[in-house]
Amino acid sequence: LDYQHVQVPFEITLWIMLASLAKIGFHLYNKLPSVVPESCLLIFVGLIMGGIIYGLNDRSPPVMDSDIFFLYLLPPIVLDAGYFMPSRPFFENIGTILLYAVVGTIWNVFGIGFSLYGICQVKAFRLQDVSLLHNLLFGSLIAAVDPVAVLAVFEEIHVNEKLHILVFGESLLNDAVTVVLYKLFRSFCEMPTIKSVDVFAGVGKFFVVGLGGVLVGLSFGFTAAFTTRFTKDIRVIEPLFVFLYSYLSYLTAEMFHLSGIVAIISCAMGMKRYVEANISLKSHTTVKYFMKMWSSVSDTLIFIFLGVSTIGENHEWNWPYICFTVIFCLIWRALGVLVLTFFVNRFHVNTITSKDQFIIAYGGLRGAICFSLVFLLPDFHRKKLFIAATTVVILFTVFIQGMTIRPLVDLLAVKRKRESAPTVGEQIHIRFLDHLLAGIEDISGHWGQYYWKDKLEYFNSKYLQKILLREYDQPKSSIVLLYEKLERKHAIELAQAGQLGHGQAHPSFLSSDRTVITDQKLEDTLNPDVLDNMQEILARNLYRIRRTGPAYNRHTLPGDSEPTEQAKEILILRHKSL
Amino acid sequence: LDYQHVQVPFEITLWIMLASLAKIGFHLYNKLPSVVPESCLLIFVGLIMGGIIYGLNDRSPPVMDSDIFFLYLLPPIVLDAGYFMPSRPFFENIGTILLYAVVGTIWNVFGIGFSLYGICQVKAFRLQDVSLLHNLLFGSLIAAVDPVAVLAVFEEIHVNEKLHILVFGESLLNDAVTVVLYKLFRSFCEMPTIKSVDVFAGVGKFFVVGLGGVLVGLSFGFTAAFTTRFTKDIRVIEPLFVFLYSYLSYLTAEMFHLSGIVAIISCAMGMKRYVEANISLKSHTTVKYFMKMWSSVSDTLIFIFLGVSTIGENHEWNWPYICFTVIFCLIWRALGVLVLTFFVNRFHVNTITSKDQFIIAYGGLRGAICFSLVFLLPDFHRKKLFIAATTVVILFTVFIQGMTIRPLVDLLAVKRKRESAPTVGEQIHIRFLDHLLAGIEDISGHWGQYYWKDKLEYFNSKYLQKILLREYDQPKSSIVLLYEKLERKHAIELAQAGQLGHGQAHPSFLSSDRTVITDQKLEDTLNPDVLDNMQEILARNLYRIRRTGPAYNRHTLPGDSEPTEQAKEILILRHKSL
Repeated sequence: LDYQHVQVPFEITLWIMLASLAKIGFHLYNKLPSVVPESCLLIFVGLIMGGIIYGLNDRSPPVMDSDIFFLYLLPPIVLDAGYFMPSRPFFENIGTILLYAVVGTIWNVFGIGFSLYGICQVKAFRLQDVSLLHNLLFGSLIAAVDPVAVLAVFEEIHVNEKLHILVFGESLLNDAVTVVLYKLFRSFCEMPTIKSVDVFAGVGKFFVVGLGGVLVGLSFGFTAAFTTRFTKDIRVIEPLFVFLYSYLSYLTAEMFHLSGIVAIISCAMGMKRYVEANISLKSHTTVKYFMKMWSSVSDTLIFIFLGVSTIGENHEWNWPYICFTVIFCLIWRALGVLVLTFFVNRFHVNTITSKDQFIIAYGGLRGAICFSLVFLLPDFHRKKLFIAATTVVILFTVFIQGMTIRPLVDLLAVKRKRESAPTVGEQIHIRFLDHLLAGIEDISGHWGQYYWKDKLEYFNSKYLQKILLREYDQPKSSIVLLYEKLERKHAIELAQAGQLGHGQAHPSFLSSDRTVITDQKLEDTLNPDVLDNMQEILARNLYRIRRTGPAYNRHTLPGDSEPTEQAKEILILRHKSL
Repeated sequence: LDYQHVQVPFEITLWIMLASLAKIGFHLYNKLPSVVPESCLLIFVGLIMGGIIYGLNDRSPPVMDSDIFFLYLLPPIVLDAGYFMPSRPFFENIGTILLYAVVGTIWNVFGIGFSLYGICQVKAFRLQDVSLLHNLLFGSLIAAVDPVAVLAVFEEIHVNEKLHILVFGESLLNDAVTVVLYKLFRSFCEMPTIKSVDVFAGVGKFFVVGLGGVLVGLSFGFTAAFTTRFTKDIRVIEPLFVFLYSYLSYLTAEMFHLSGIVAIISCAMGMKRYVEANISLKSHTTVKYFMKMWSSVSDTLIFIFLGVSTIGENHEWNWPYICFTVIFCLIWRALGVLVLTFFVNRFHVNTITSKDQFIIAYGGLRGAICFSLVFLLPDFHRKKLFIAATTVVILFTVFIQGMTIRPLVDLLAVKRKRESAPTVGEQIHIRFLDHLLAGIEDISGHWGQYYWKDKLEYFNSKYLQKILLREYDQPKSSIVLLYEKLERKHAIELAQAGQLGHGQAHPSFLSSDRTVITDQKLEDTLNPDVLDNMQEILARNLYRIRRTGPAYNRHTLPGDSEPTEQAKEILILRHKSL
């Protein structure tokens, strides 16, 4: 037996296998997942396993390595989140999300830090040796809402799209703030004196870390899109590039101390559109499937490790500090959401209701990021207290809040996500309104989101698509092809028969004929995939139509757009027959 | 800048990226890959990179780590090979393949070992210190044909299926022999004296290593199939199990010093059928795509590393020894193939032609396995000579033989692989002959391959399928469904109309009606996927038909099989109308 030789891959494979089998186990009984969130169950499995390891070895089970977490487990989840991010609600609410993520997180950090410092001054608790800086450092790691935990819980409760994107977007984008504040306070802890210059440098770093992450991500994303232009002959390695480039963007950002999460999200959102158009359908299925698979396994492993790492002897149970941490986390988040939403609602027509505010505040779950950060703290005599407090906050938020949020959503009758996708009609109306609003903004000289969206779309089609896409002309959608086929068929019939002379009988014949065939066809083809495709193409083509004939131009009269050759042919044929 | 922190994943990702980009680069110019095999080009890239690293650092570039090769790079390639192995030609030629793999490899090992020992006795070459055991050890690692190199070259030249499976099957199965002989001679080298018991134990080990590998592989394969029975609710992690279980089978086999290659191939071949039936279509696409992608990247990395590792100062250039190694490798392989094929041809009707024999002998490429094994040798003063000889043999076989084999195949007009898949008619005839032959073997009491195949199929449907498959009843194929639909429609028409009274007019009406609809339908549906599916289902159902009514039974008379309810209904309707 030669176990040493294969130990590393063998144990990794076994852990992944265990995680996958645990997942299968939960889903065997349908009732369990509908009551308890999967994350709770996985932590529970981890706790049991940790207990077994502790009992057998009589020493603490190994804690989750922060490097493994940040380098291998977190990226797949964030990549999946970024790639499948619904971009429309995200960009529509980007202002609110950023406000929550930046101002809200800073508010929480300082709120929790200062009030815990206040608690430390109470002599009865014997905590006087915890300095303000240490409390702020602790606040910076405990304040951030965790994307992994939020995703795990919110995916199961199906709240409305806006509410979901507000909580989820905040949890992703607060990474930049957390990174800056955490590193700032850590370096302050090690400095003998703090100058005011350092504080200002820290504030400047926000922008560097956040915007730097976006830049790194976008450059890798566009390179990925550009690379997939040339993979026509070796389709089989196409999916690889999506993973390689996004991972590289994450690692590069981490290397330069920028926000890796922000980088990988920008990379995924930036490349998605072009990569999808360039790679084959099977490659794309593989990309989507593998991303989901990978993130699901990572997620499972994280929660199991969280459970395993909780068991052990690296905790200092000072209950007053721990309890007040939980209370302050709840209070400051609730206050922050209330105050920020008050300002947000003053500037928006579509306000955030008080029910939504409650869910946003209540959905501020903490998870594995806090846990990894607390283990990364430099050694000092109260580190075990911080570890204990972090563990309790995580378990409290994931178990108590995670398990009660679904009943609360039911009880408050929070607006749910609509079950069905928007119809083609709705989709067209939305697009139409977009153009209308872009036009109004254009005329009124107001640079709102519709104006920028339109400009971005123009830049995209004018430059980016030409560089990044394999063929510039998009393939036509099935509905357009069907329409063309019917038109051609009808024209040929008219030409051959030459017996339908009446202008009046003609449209009805046409429409009835078309309806029959279309209905029959639609029945065959209207599965969700085709609908998705149709809607996407409609979106693209509606933009194109606007672009080909500008609605208003100071210098030219609105001209007829030239009919295509096929249309001409049909016209001639029709004319002949009549 | 914090490079240390991300170094490991960053460099791995960069290497994979480099490999993928190199692959894209070659395929940009269509002429290059048609002349030079990809493996040669990749080694060339590796040589250049090695040269650059050597020039910049002024020391040998890092050689490919044998652990990385055996634990991470080799398994994906072998898994891919096993999963996509055409099982019919493989099992039809299993005897010949095993003869080449076992007897042929032993022949080569001892042939090369003894004749190199002879060369060492020539005083002018100054090689007298290389013992017989060391020569045999070297023979054991240089004799084995390499599956990675063979696959890379033979995939591009499209020789006929039998020839391909003979060379490729041999290269896969000789792993067991290589492992045993290599470890045997290595331990002999370290022993003070060798007893005859040790030699016999070595011979016994062949069976343990080979059959043990098969057992480990099959048990993991069946467990994988069993696991996928329960993944209905979490489709997204289905592909994972295919990879996890096969990798575990490889690692487990390696752990017990069995043949990992044999284990992973058995695992893949064992689970394929059941896993395919259990998992969703999208999961299956992902499995196939990812396997191909992974093996393609591994393959690329191996050849690049091979090139990089060639550059450096760990060689001892004793040219007589090196040249004679190349010559003996060629001679002994050619002789081995000639002698073994002589015996094989005496027992087979469908003989191996002399052209095929030439290609089998010439296609004996050496590759990364030899290379990794020679670096794993215990340190002794002539190790560098062995490394040099191995490098030259690999480069000679991959470059000279790999590049000339395609022109030779053209020149000799070796029978090529047929371009089109067999038609449904051919497929039915093949199946029919299988049954016929199984029946003949049954009656004559000869236990040939058809007998065993039939028994295996019976065991499979009686026990294995019930345990391993989610639903025991296979979904019906599209052609059967279409036939049933047509029958039903026709019956209803007959019943409703009641006007077709003549028995004679009726079949022609039926057939013409059916032909029209079938043709129309076939046009829509006869893409290769559907054909594959049809053929598979035909294969399955033909077996089933035979099973439901045994051809001959000593105790009962051949009874009419009961018509199904639907058939009854149709008969009644038809009767009424007549």
